[in-house]
Amino acid sequence: MSSSSSSSSSTTTTTTTTTTTNVKIQNEYLKNDETDYLYHLGLDSSMDLKSMFSDVRFVCMGGSASRALKIAQRLCKELNVFEGLPAGLDVATIGKTERYSMYKVGPVVSVNHGMGMPSLSILLHETTKLLHYAGAKDVMFIRVGTSGGIGIEGGTVLLTTAALNGELDELFTLYVLGEKRQWPATIDADVVEEIRQVARAQCPSVKVVTGKTLGTDCFYEGQGRLDGAICEYTEHDKFAFLKRLHALGVCNIEMEASLFAAFTRRLGIRAALINVALLNRLHGDQVTSTSAQLSQFTDDAISIMIAYINSKLTNQG
Amino acid sequence: MSSSSSSSSSTTTTTTTTTTTNVKIQNEYLKNDETDYLYHLGLDSSMDLKSMFSDVRFVCMGGSASRALKIAQRLCKELNVFEGLPAGLDVATIGKTERYSMYKVGPVVSVNHGMGMPSLSILLHETTKLLHYAGAKDVMFIRVGTSGGIGIEGGTVLLTTAALNGELDELFTLYVLGEKRQWPATIDADVVEEIRQVARAQCPSVKVVTGKTLGTDCFYEGQGRLDGAICEYTEHDKFAFLKRLHALGVCNIEMEASLFAAFTRRLGIRAALINVALLNRLHGDQVTSTSAQLSQFTDDAISIMIAYINSKLTNQG
Repeated sequence: MSSSSSSSSSTTTTTTTTTTTNVKIQNEYLKNDETDYLYHLGLDSSMDLKSMFSDVRFVCMGGSASRALKIAQRLCKELNVFEGLPAGLDVATIGKTERYSMYKVGPVVSVNHGMGMPSLSILLHETTKLLHYAGAKDVMFIRVGTSGGIGIEGGTVLLTTAALNGELDELFTLYVLGEKRQWPATIDADVVEEIRQVARAQCPSVKVVTGKTLGTDCFYEGQGRLDGAICEYTEHDKFAFLKRLHALGVCNIEMEASLFAAFTRRLGIRAALINVALLNRLHGDQVTSTSAQLSQFTDDAISIMIAYINSKLTNQG
Repeated sequence: MSSSSSSSSSTTTTTTTTTTTNVKIQNEYLKNDETDYLYHLGLDSSMDLKSMFSDVRFVCMGGSASRALKIAQRLCKELNVFEGLPAGLDVATIGKTERYSMYKVGPVVSVNHGMGMPSLSILLHETTKLLHYAGAKDVMFIRVGTSGGIGIEGGTVLLTTAALNGELDELFTLYVLGEKRQWPATIDADVVEEIRQVARAQCPSVKVVTGKTLGTDCFYEGQGRLDGAICEYTEHDKFAFLKRLHALGVCNIEMEASLFAAFTRRLGIRAALINVALLNRLHGDQVTSTSAQLSQFTDDAISIMIAYINSKLTNQG
């Protein structure tokens, strides 16, 4: 991709109007003055979080620590807004790294969430509280990840419009105090369209589609794979399931989308899911692309994310 | 703890009779000759897995990569069976480390599973296939972790007898091909008793109890905490829930137990859950013990695990 500092005119026309909004939390119990320990981040509310994080505008989330570092390193080179950021800055982790690795490059945080919704959930709760305490404004969360495609080939980037749960509803499900709770898991259509336009203008060589994502709690049985240690269904059952998903508009399967969409929607945080397909599940289950190909797939998804961040920072300062 | 090589006589009396059993998989589709890529481990079935892993008898699993390393380093010092193992061996990771960090010390594998059941699930599927291909025999999986106690104080080690899901049933739930599937999530009572006896004999200073574990998909709302970014219930609701759990025999809450118990049971793999409580949730939600205290809590749980492994390796060669 080009890291040119000019934003495409097409993005400007569809930019949604945003007023300055603090990152909100919904918890009456955190309004007292006690120190809040963000245990898994290794940070707490007694620290000077305002000077550390008040300028954050984007939080980029990916699965592995190495991806968080890679994104941070690319942000150093490719972000358009380098005010106050030394050239050639070495990125360093913030807080503890036992669970997550967090970096900050100018107004952008890069952090990994591990695999699956429970691991992502802890990061979402603690990062949201962190940015709330820091007084950060107009923050957007973007997950950039990998997925298994359904009817889309390896290397295709999917911008998620809605996430389905295991029951194939556009909802995220969680048991709270012993009761089943569900919340809508859709992504703002304006955001999807903005990113699509930026990708088309700035990363024309990457195939980008929009569609729904199935978020599962298991990579093998939960995604109908035939190569887990346990497989109690047939290949016919698997393809019937994938075709059923395809008919519902599902273009890929990963392990975070439903929670990510629902959590951000509950708190009114702008959010996007940018997932590249590693393979087309309609052709097979094993990831057989070369290491170089897989790396390029991920790079392309990151390129789109950074192009979008640059377009927003340029348009809105 | 003592790393004495003498096993306690009390453990011998309750040792369950085991015949030599290969690690099984239940998947007709993996019986052909194609290479099976264990994607998240960075290993595959075309490698000489037999020479690498055929002698494995125990797989120790913990949440973080740093814990997997710590366990491996302690195994080097404290395992009784050092045949073929150089003194002072530096442990090195096996496979790729992007997702999990795997070590092997003699007949024991130490590997981290990340946080939550989806992340653990991938590790369980791929490690089971790995050991199946390697021809490993009589393998036991042990998860050693941290948890929030219910009615037990920080530092108490709980040996899990059964794991409850979000519906408070002793089952693990997963949606497979769009359908709700459930499996029993209990731990072999003989194994629990064996470990309890070893702990009492070898680690007498550690408080050890047996009881049930709630396995959740969320650290905050899923566990009734009052300090998440979102909290839609009251403190009264929370305590009513914790007391309901307590009445059901639940002594702690963590994020892996239900899947771990159910998966190993499905495949007939001996398994144990050794979780130390970081705090008593009946007193508060925040982890406020010092770093040194928390480290000691985890060390104690690991000590019990290693004492048990030593007792089994000594008794059964």
